[in-house]
Amino acid sequence: MSNQLDKKSQAWSALFSEPMSELVQRYTASVFFDKRLAEADITGSLAHAGMLAAQGIISAADLAAIQQGMAQIRREIETGQFEWKLALEDVHLNIEARLTQLVGDAGKRLHTGRSRNDQVATDIRLWLRGEIDLISRLLRDLQAALISVAERNVNTILPGFTHLQVAQPVSFAHHLLAYVEMFARDEARMQDVRKRVNQLPLGSAALAGTTYPLDRESVARALGMVDEQGRPCVCQNSLDAVSDRDFAIEFAAAASLVMVHISRLSEELVLWMSQNFAFIRIADRFTTGSSIMPQKKNPDVPELARGKTGRVAGHLMGLITLMKGQPLAYNKDNQEDKEPLFDTVDTVRDTLRIFTDMIGGQPNAQTGAREGGITVQAAAMRQAASRGYATATDLADYLVKKGLPFRDAHETVARAVKAAQQQGVDLAELPLETLQAFDPRIEADVYDKALTLEAALNARNTLGGTAPAQVQAQIARHKARLSAGQS
Amino acid sequence: MSNQLDKKSQAWSALFSEPMSELVQRYTASVFFDKRLAEADITGSLAHAGMLAAQGIISAADLAAIQQGMAQIRREIETGQFEWKLALEDVHLNIEARLTQLVGDAGKRLHTGRSRNDQVATDIRLWLRGEIDLISRLLRDLQAALISVAERNVNTILPGFTHLQVAQPVSFAHHLLAYVEMFARDEARMQDVRKRVNQLPLGSAALAGTTYPLDRESVARALGMVDEQGRPCVCQNSLDAVSDRDFAIEFAAAASLVMVHISRLSEELVLWMSQNFAFIRIADRFTTGSSIMPQKKNPDVPELARGKTGRVAGHLMGLITLMKGQPLAYNKDNQEDKEPLFDTVDTVRDTLRIFTDMIGGQPNAQTGAREGGITVQAAAMRQAASRGYATATDLADYLVKKGLPFRDAHETVARAVKAAQQQGVDLAELPLETLQAFDPRIEADVYDKALTLEAALNARNTLGGTAPAQVQAQIARHKARLSAGQS
Amino acid sequence: MSNQLDKKSQAWSALFSEPMSELVQRYTASVFFDKRLAEADITGSLAHAGMLAAQGIISAADLAAIQQGMAQIRREIETGQFEWKLALEDVHLNIEARLTQLVGDAGKRLHTGRSRNDQVATDIRLWLRGEIDLISRLLRDLQAALISVAERNVNTILPGFTHLQVAQPVSFAHHLLAYVEMFARDEARMQDVRKRVNQLPLGSAALAGTTYPLDRESVARALGMVDEQGRPCVCQNSLDAVSDRDFAIEFAAAASLVMVHISRLSEELVLWMSQNFAFIRIADRFTTGSSIMPQKKNPDVPELARGKTGRVAGHLMGLITLMKGQPLAYNKDNQEDKEPLFDTVDTVRDTLRIFTDMIGGQPNAQTGAREGGITVQAAAMRQAASRGYATATDLADYLVKKGLPFRDAHETVARAVKAAQQQGVDLAELPLETLQAFDPRIEADVYDKALTLEAALNARNTLGGTAPAQVQAQIARHKARLSAGQS
Amino acid sequence: MSNQLDKKSQAWSALFSEPMSELVQRYTASVFFDKRLAEADITGSLAHAGMLAAQGIISAADLAAIQQGMAQIRREIETGQFEWKLALEDVHLNIEARLTQLVGDAGKRLHTGRSRNDQVATDIRLWLRGEIDLISRLLRDLQAALISVAERNVNTILPGFTHLQVAQPVSFAHHLLAYVEMFARDEARMQDVRKRVNQLPLGSAALAGTTYPLDRESVARALGMVDEQGRPCVCQNSLDAVSDRDFAIEFAAAASLVMVHISRLSEELVLWMSQNFAFIRIADRFTTGSSIMPQKKNPDVPELARGKTGRVAGHLMGLITLMKGQPLAYNKDNQEDKEPLFDTVDTVRDTLRIFTDMIGGQPNAQTGAREGGITVQAAAMRQAASRGYATATDLADYLVKKGLPFRDAHETVARAVKAAQQQGVDLAELPLETLQAFDPRIEADVYDKALTLEAALNARNTLGGTAPAQVQAQIARHKARLSAGQS
Repeated sequence: MSNQLDKKSQAWSALFSEPMSELVQRYTASVFFDKRLAEADITGSLAHAGMLAAQGIISAADLAAIQQGMAQIRREIETGQFEWKLALEDVHLNIEARLTQLVGDAGKRLHTGRSRNDQVATDIRLWLRGEIDLISRLLRDLQAALISVAERNVNTILPGFTHLQVAQPVSFAHHLLAYVEMFARDEARMQDVRKRVNQLPLGSAALAGTTYPLDRESVARALGMVDEQGRPCVCQNSLDAVSDRDFAIEFAAAASLVMVHISRLSEELVLWMSQNFAFIRIADRFTTGSSIMPQKKNPDVPELARGKTGRVAGHLMGLITLMKGQPLAYNKDNQEDKEPLFDTVDTVRDTLRIFTDMIGGQPNAQTGAREGGITVQAAAMRQAASRGYATATDLADYLVKKGLPFRDAHETVARAVKAAQQQGVDLAELPLETLQAFDPRIEADVYDKALTLEAALNARNTLGGTAPAQVQAQIARHKARLSAGQS
Repeated sequence: MSNQLDKKSQAWSALFSEPMSELVQRYTASVFFDKRLAEADITGSLAHAGMLAAQGIISAADLAAIQQGMAQIRREIETGQFEWKLALEDVHLNIEARLTQLVGDAGKRLHTGRSRNDQVATDIRLWLRGEIDLISRLLRDLQAALISVAERNVNTILPGFTHLQVAQPVSFAHHLLAYVEMFARDEARMQDVRKRVNQLPLGSAALAGTTYPLDRESVARALGMVDEQGRPCVCQNSLDAVSDRDFAIEFAAAASLVMVHISRLSEELVLWMSQNFAFIRIADRFTTGSSIMPQKKNPDVPELARGKTGRVAGHLMGLITLMKGQPLAYNKDNQEDKEPLFDTVDTVRDTLRIFTDMIGGQPNAQTGAREGGITVQAAAMRQAASRGYATATDLADYLVKKGLPFRDAHETVARAVKAAQQQGVDLAELPLETLQAFDPRIEADVYDKALTLEAALNARNTLGGTAPAQVQAQIARHKARLSAGQS
Repeated sequence: MSNQLDKKSQAWSALFSEPMSELVQRYTASVFFDKRLAEADITGSLAHAGMLAAQGIISAADLAAIQQGMAQIRREIETGQFEWKLALEDVHLNIEARLTQLVGDAGKRLHTGRSRNDQVATDIRLWLRGEIDLISRLLRDLQAALISVAERNVNTILPGFTHLQVAQPVSFAHHLLAYVEMFARDEARMQDVRKRVNQLPLGSAALAGTTYPLDRESVARALGMVDEQGRPCVCQNSLDAVSDRDFAIEFAAAASLVMVHISRLSEELVLWMSQNFAFIRIADRFTTGSSIMPQKKNPDVPELARGKTGRVAGHLMGLITLMKGQPLAYNKDNQEDKEPLFDTVDTVRDTLRIFTDMIGGQPNAQTGAREGGITVQAAAMRQAASRGYATATDLADYLVKKGLPFRDAHETVARAVKAAQQQGVDLAELPLETLQAFDPRIEADVYDKALTLEAALNARNTLGGTAPAQVQAQIARHKARLSAGQS
Repeated sequence: MSNQLDKKSQAWSALFSEPMSELVQRYTASVFFDKRLAEADITGSLAHAGMLAAQGIISAADLAAIQQGMAQIRREIETGQFEWKLALEDVHLNIEARLTQLVGDAGKRLHTGRSRNDQVATDIRLWLRGEIDLISRLLRDLQAALISVAERNVNTILPGFTHLQVAQPVSFAHHLLAYVEMFARDEARMQDVRKRVNQLPLGSAALAGTTYPLDRESVARALGMVDEQGRPCVCQNSLDAVSDRDFAIEFAAAASLVMVHISRLSEELVLWMSQNFAFIRIADRFTTGSSIMPQKKNPDVPELARGKTGRVAGHLMGLITLMKGQPLAYNKDNQEDKEPLFDTVDTVRDTLRIFTDMIGGQPNAQTGAREGGITVQAAAMRQAASRGYATATDLADYLVKKGLPFRDAHETVARAVKAAQQQGVDLAELPLETLQAFDPRIEADVYDKALTLEAALNARNTLGGTAPAQVQAQIARHKARLSAGQS
């Protein structure tokens, strides 16, 4: 018999008196971007078919035919032989039409008790769950790369900035670990998103549930949609299940935060690469030159990554605007969830990978050692930290320990800084008598106890502070955490 | 002695050769909006002071003076007697200056081992934690209101729409429970945000930690910043702690989703109030009239709420743009986090409250019973469900149960619908012989088993479906969940 | 001789000690999306080469070789034979490398006095100018389609809504002309954007201008970059010229407004298609069915268009975030301007085309007549206008003309409406004595003068009002405007 | 007699059976933010009343009473004696109620032929027009401030950056003039927005026009809503007129671009203030210190301004989301247009004012001379320009003039740079024979003609280039333009 799915419009054709126009077909079709859901679609269909057979809704022979047909479709897709047809609109109808071509009526029975509305929601959740798992791994790889550089730079002194003004000396490792905290939070956030992604809409049918005796919980289990206690996670309201795109927005928000962190790190890498800082070098393979200026080595990768923050934030905004004011249940607007989601995933994945290599280096095929990570110019960092009266706070703290209220010590040191500025020297270069003129409690030990970069660094020895001892402890904590697989 | 905090610019004045201009003062000051952090600021300061005394950094007498001064400041703020000064820039310096005025040097010692950078981050986290708890309660109240209307409308039949076209009949209770799912997810999301809000930056000082032997974990405990196991939650990296605003963005994203859900419900309320639907009425107190058209009762509240979605989404976007590309550590840009956050909280709180009353009614002061919730026009809903061939899927399912593959049944019913449309009647109004002309397997039981609204409703009796039995089960589940305090 | 452009990295290779990694190459390359700038790139290069020759910077022979080479490249691109190479990064280097392959040293001399920074800015402006012109034409086509339906519906009465509540009767033509106003504004806005797009960056070189004696104004003239008086439009500051992306943001903002208007029209089309309104039908070719519900005809096109509003607004947001905080001059971030811009153009173009056909119909290949536009269900519109006391304002105005202050008349009519509601009738169905009980000044002429839909319509006969005479005048104005080519 | 407007709910009360709840009143009221429209509201009302009298719709006595009442209301508002009432919801009803209290029935007649829908649209357009004019003036002031610093720094040499890498030397004046171009474009854009703001909705009434014989064009003329030819600008479609908020979105987009430019300038000011650049100093009055670090002078103003970019972009996004998908005509959602618009105007105004002072200085009350603008550290700029091989392009151009194709010259210079880097010297420090080893065409004149900063600067002497002669010409052009009042 004829297969009315061969042309997609025939999935609903009897009621329609004219074919769809070509422009409309292109405008409404999604197959050229949603075909990346193919594997999720097949996985979901097989779980559905298995349950239909277990419930006696289709026969064991039908199930076998569906499994066999899907195996062939999988091969065709993997080998690039599958013929995607615009006329069949989307990945779902393309696969179902091919299945029916291959196995006949069994293929037609696969759609029993489901609709494209719950099918597409299921597919996208399955696909996104996999991407979240991958992104989580990549976030851990980037943390590991940052930690590897941190380990070698616990005692490398950098000027800590607030307002991009020299503030206090910090360990370069401590600075890098700030980003480890950010990416660790990103990973934890991704795991929270995952909980709400990993729920089964299938069985909600078009909007109201189905008349077939489905066992939705068994499908959820088959698809790994279970909570930490192993209980199946099934969307509990069919209207909500087919129209909910919270998870897409929530993922885009988490991805935007990843990119915000990347943009902050990028901003710093660009600054540090600038000749006026010269704190680091990035391997040539991550930079580009100029078609006109022969001397240029440009930090293209961090710049581009910084720019891509806008792209991902734009997708978040687009998704929120998309869902605003939509009445229940499914509306075609929702098809617009896919492209921003796909592009967000691609952008975050590529960016995390390239940053891991750029920071920590790429594995040498022969030796396995990572090569080509950032090169730290410790001398330039130290020199910059010596500018800007980075130890002024330490002098104030020194005075507080001698009994001055903090506010008064602050005032006293401000006067000393002003005097030093006028002479064009650092605080440590002022002779003792000059310092004592500001407060007689200042003694000769001030130079060692307060006015060297090392003294300032070592002094901040409370939890979370920049003292090398604290930084070492944090590195140990992070390494233990990462090997234990905790975010 | 003089108190150099009396004018804020004197907090750093010795180095500065000229006073701040008036416009600059207004441009950079935040006291007129951040004074709502006063309670959090005092709470945080008292915890800090307590720890300073316990660690021997300040004396017991200083602690007592600080506690006494703060008690008075609290009273002054509560009674509106506290004089907020623009010249003192922000809530923190205003309170500290007043404290020093009241208790002298002890007040000056309070700032030992902290900076405004970690202080403001602590205050805003304490404040936001409280607001998240309140919003969570309000989300539960709204769920309860929706459930109370649902309970009375399990058997009220509404046309379920997809694409705003009549799709299948659904229970009005089922429809309302879709929103309960959304707001329950919102609550769960808020709890996830709360985990990352409820962490202590204090002790990070300006950016690098402090030279005083603070016990940050005891401060965290004193402020209730502990995890589910009661372990203190302390920000582990000082640079990150003072510059992190992830929690604000994450909260704004969760709030945007709340508003997206509100906007969807609002869209439906507006539709349902329209004369062409007339599915519900909203109590007069939630509507407004027209200055020109005497007959108008306008659903102002849902419309305004729908509009406010843009406001909250705009704040989210603003916060992301704010943080994009900021180098470490604290930059003044961050001051711009507060107004969007405050307005987001106010908008979400007011909206949730007003929706709870509008949907479920307001408690009568005498009887305690809720009055003035939405009025359901069941007859109009039912009539609308009778239009649009809402039971066509059921006829297809009927044929599938007689052995037809689903795709063929779909085609057959499409032809029957076309015939009924041409006659201007519903499927149930076609005589049996006409139906049998489309497929001879159709028998007299088709009317009861497939073509009535009740049959269609009852047939969708799987988990998450619209059958009254399922809806009752969901109501019971939600009520149990809400009384157990689970999201 | 060797052509070091054959591999793009060789455009700057001497300084670089290692090749670019593959992932980096893919991450930083743009050729797979920017090749759509090829025609603009060739046009710009030919204008540049022509000027170089005229100024004696290159020889006439070089110019001839470049022109010949470019002609061949154009043919290769048109016929799909041009081989785009990822290794050559972008459209500019791909074309230049091929040119050099074809014509040798003359090709290498083309880049004299320019840089990729000013070249890409020129290309994107040339390309966008063409797209703006096309979009302007499409905006006019859509206006014409709306006007064609309006012409046939001047006397078709629709309930005008405010707050989606029946307000006053309006002409359906008047309603459609509201959208003509919006799309006319869009066109005017596009023309304003065009002025700022149509300016020449070329000659700014990398950032600081060039050492060659270029004649930038002649290049501007050759490229049609002239103002209304024919004066050349040349970017006057080289640093600004290479880094400015205002025009992209401004275009995205104008495009967002087009989509906001499309979303409003879409919302109404979806409402009007709904069974509860049934005001219009859309031709089958613009709707789709359901894979599960045999009776469905869904307004997919307006829904999808409504959804695409988010996409375009997201691109606008992305572009703003992209440019925020970028220091001068060119940064690689800017490469991220292209994909959002390209997608915005594609989305707006496709949407305008499909809406023109959906509203006004598509030309029949044989007859040339447009077929398949929206079908107006005048009876349903009229019936809906009869609900909701749409003439209440007219009764108030009737009383004002009898001497009552407006506020008092408003109050009186509100009481009459309440009485009519309680009886379940329209105002026109209340007997004269009942009406007179509210105000004795009401006479028998009230029914004809105030309480019929036609009376209400005809009475609003001031400029911009809904009276058919006014609507006819507006249609005439719009038609004259469109034929005169004015926005 | 009683004035039913005394309580706002009484503007429509007869139909309503219960009063509005307090929370609803607060939620829906706008008077606490829209009272800033008071002057526009009075101006619009007086124009409307004048026309009503001229058309014989109200009597001359009524007009006189209205004028007298409005004069008193104006005084009451100016002196702070006007009592704003929440119960009267918005600025319009507050003023109308007070007017009726003062002048009785004449006040009630003012609302004849208009509605709040067209009234509010008129008010906001009148108000915004004034703000656009002010912002345009402020944009010109900022341009003048930038030009005043530029004039003194035509020969100050700065390293021009691309990718924040030293690229080529540029004049600091040239750099500042890039921002003049941006703010000039902003002004031109504001003027384009103004055209579409300056159109009259009044006379559209609630949505459909009015039954009174209004003369809308005379009202437009009275309110200065005329085009360049003096023709009245009247909104031509009543449905569009009351629901259009394009102008708000368009203004917010133009304002976002102003802020994007401010953010770019801010980013550079922050960089230049950083100790690693030290290119400029900002007057103390525009900086702030630290409560903990005594040495700090932080560039708070540019940082805060950079942060405020997010705020304004967020408002733009909020407004687009607000309007997305709204059906015609007026919906209450639109009330949400005001707060973002007001805050956008305030932010842009304050920011432009403070930047003008910070860049160009503030007028000294005694001398009138501007004091306290940025201080240029020319030596630091020059030193930075000497790093990074800024004249490498000039060496390539030198070789091209000797006959080498550009691509080959580029390659040659790249090798020379690499050699110089390895020796840790600048190109100008390489001896002639070393240079000649790279290409024998290099002669002794290379040092003067190509390798000094001045040579490089002077060589870029084409239109828009950085040569001092070009920069002087641009300064003259800008000054002429500003005095002629052209954007």
